[in-house]
Amino acid sequence: MVIVTDGHRDTDTAKTAICLLRYCADEVVAVFDRQSAGKTCREVFGVGGAIPLIGSLAEAPEADTLVVGIAPPGGRIPPHWRPIILEAIARRMSVVSGLHDFLRDDAEYLRAAERHGARLVDLRDNDERDVARREGIRRRCLRIHTIGNDCCCGKMVCGVELARGLGRAGVDAAFVATGQTGILVAGAGCPVDRVIADFLGGAAEKLVLANQHHDVIVVEGQGSLFHPRYSCVALGLLHGVMPDGLVLCYTMGRRTFFGMENIPLPSLEKVVEFYESAARVMHPCRVVGAAVNGDGFSDAAVAAECDRVASRLGLPACDPLRHGPDKLVEAVVRLRRELGKESRVRPRRTNIYG
Amino acid sequence: MVIVTDGHRDTDTAKTAICLLRYCADEVVAVFDRQSAGKTCREVFGVGGAIPLIGSLAEAPEADTLVVGIAPPGGRIPPHWRPIILEAIARRMSVVSGLHDFLRDDAEYLRAAERHGARLVDLRDNDERDVARREGIRRRCLRIHTIGNDCCCGKMVCGVELARGLGRAGVDAAFVATGQTGILVAGAGCPVDRVIADFLGGAAEKLVLANQHHDVIVVEGQGSLFHPRYSCVALGLLHGVMPDGLVLCYTMGRRTFFGMENIPLPSLEKVVEFYESAARVMHPCRVVGAAVNGDGFSDAAVAAECDRVASRLGLPACDPLRHGPDKLVEAVVRLRRELGKESRVRPRRTNIYG
Repeated sequence: MVIVTDGHRDTDTAKTAICLLRYCADEVVAVFDRQSAGKTCREVFGVGGAIPLIGSLAEAPEADTLVVGIAPPGGRIPPHWRPIILEAIARRMSVVSGLHDFLRDDAEYLRAAERHGARLVDLRDNDERDVARREGIRRRCLRIHTIGNDCCCGKMVCGVELARGLGRAGVDAAFVATGQTGILVAGAGCPVDRVIADFLGGAAEKLVLANQHHDVIVVEGQGSLFHPRYSCVALGLLHGVMPDGLVLCYTMGRRTFFGMENIPLPSLEKVVEFYESAARVMHPCRVVGAAVNGDGFSDAAVAAECDRVASRLGLPACDPLRHGPDKLVEAVVRLRRELGKESRVRPRRTNIYG
Repeated sequence: MVIVTDGHRDTDTAKTAICLLRYCADEVVAVFDRQSAGKTCREVFGVGGAIPLIGSLAEAPEADTLVVGIAPPGGRIPPHWRPIILEAIARRMSVVSGLHDFLRDDAEYLRAAERHGARLVDLRDNDERDVARREGIRRRCLRIHTIGNDCCCGKMVCGVELARGLGRAGVDAAFVATGQTGILVAGAGCPVDRVIADFLGGAAEKLVLANQHHDVIVVEGQGSLFHPRYSCVALGLLHGVMPDGLVLCYTMGRRTFFGMENIPLPSLEKVVEFYESAARVMHPCRVVGAAVNGDGFSDAAVAAECDRVASRLGLPACDPLRHGPDKLVEAVVRLRRELGKESRVRPRRTNIYG
């Protein structure tokens, strides 16, 4: 694949590109960015090694897929990208987008794709029409959910790293994707923020039902209960997943909401308190750890931040990318033991959810 | 108009029909229900006076509109209604539906409507694609929001009655509809439960912006923060509207969630506590009164329930249909005075929302 980021290299907006470079580097031929053409991904994004940035699709003739690598607030494809996408279609590449503006709703793209026999893939497209049922939930599967004080703060990365860390620790764990980037990385999932509101709880519940054969599932969070735009998505997901444990993710140094810089973020204490009370409306739950996104800070500063937040919240804290997820893995294993979900023996503790 | 309820006469499922009979009786020619044909609406629904129930559209030749009068869980049109809808189309009647299954997504209805020149109106259809912006909110407009412990518990009726009561008390107040029935009654609004989750907060905010020229707006609530299916809708609306005051609505005697009878309802105290903390994430807010839906109970039983709940919660309580909304009107007027929103003089108290 070639990933387009053309003109958008900051880590928040280009998070799809950066996550693909981090988790699917083997499949990436190049990143299309005219401003940085000639550099390597390591130089520009800090991940992706020697994968080149290119200024023309002709430089990557072997690529058969073009992936839109950004997630701007509002979810619209930048208008100046039109010629790039049309050229990819003319090269019969599949074009993959996770944005709210669907490729196949654009008459010009659709005509071009039909003419050239190219595929248009809209990752956010879905036909979710089922309400939650609260039936068939498997009690023995431990449900972990990554949450945040904001959107774009590392919930997906924390989820992937935590699930992988649990796997390395011998636990049968799966990452469950709920957003376009996670779906690209995991190869499956549901773009919950694009689901019709009435059916979001049902869509989240179906993700649990589809993955609860694992001993632990780590369901990627979306938005934040505190975000003026996306709290609806965060609550539908929280209540549909009915997690046993939460991992609080936040970006170090950020003081205001992503995309709404006039509104201050709540304190982490308030985030923990409100998330726990919101989750407990449906199912017993608590925050078991904190994941610090220390992107851009020194190792020493991130270590100090983790110590500080661990002491403030009384929770294990780490930057899963910098330190590895071991502290969070240990917290999840402890919760699993405490809830009696690690043993195949039927546990005593039960509730209405089975 | 003719309202179809065919086979669905209970007050929860037939709430669209009953509300139209209550608030728009002048426009209703008849209700189509083959089982009760020959009776009057007063006999069957307790409202609508002598408006007849009919078993054939031929009995109402003057009607030019057929309205789907039910709101079943899941929002689908009963399959056995197909011949009724096709006959209405053949009679060149407009067919109006608020259900999730759109009329115009049905090839047979669409073909028939084109052939006969009939209109298909899907009230839940929307193209909301704007995120919340938190700009231009008018501070002087008092925002009231009706909430519930469950869906289908009287939030729309309470909103209409409260706005009308405020009007009678000389306050410039407007009811703002957020569901299909409210939209039919008010003639405008947004079907928020059908909006894509990412844009629900924005859609709710736009309803505020469009109506805040009034001194008080009473925004109809949807679902409940406690409902396993619809909590997402309730939070998106709550955070988009940023109410100053809430009115708690509940159905007397109901013990389990509507449509999920295996899950018990939370206590009213818990509902008040969690709704207030959820609302305060965005804006200062408190519950100012309770609206009891005493449908099916005696006057004495409803009066006793109102006294009991008023004392338990320390809030004024009434059944707005049976007692009128005066206690709630007084509570809203008190809140308006307390927040300094009744005077045209610029008040001292401000916050980041203007």
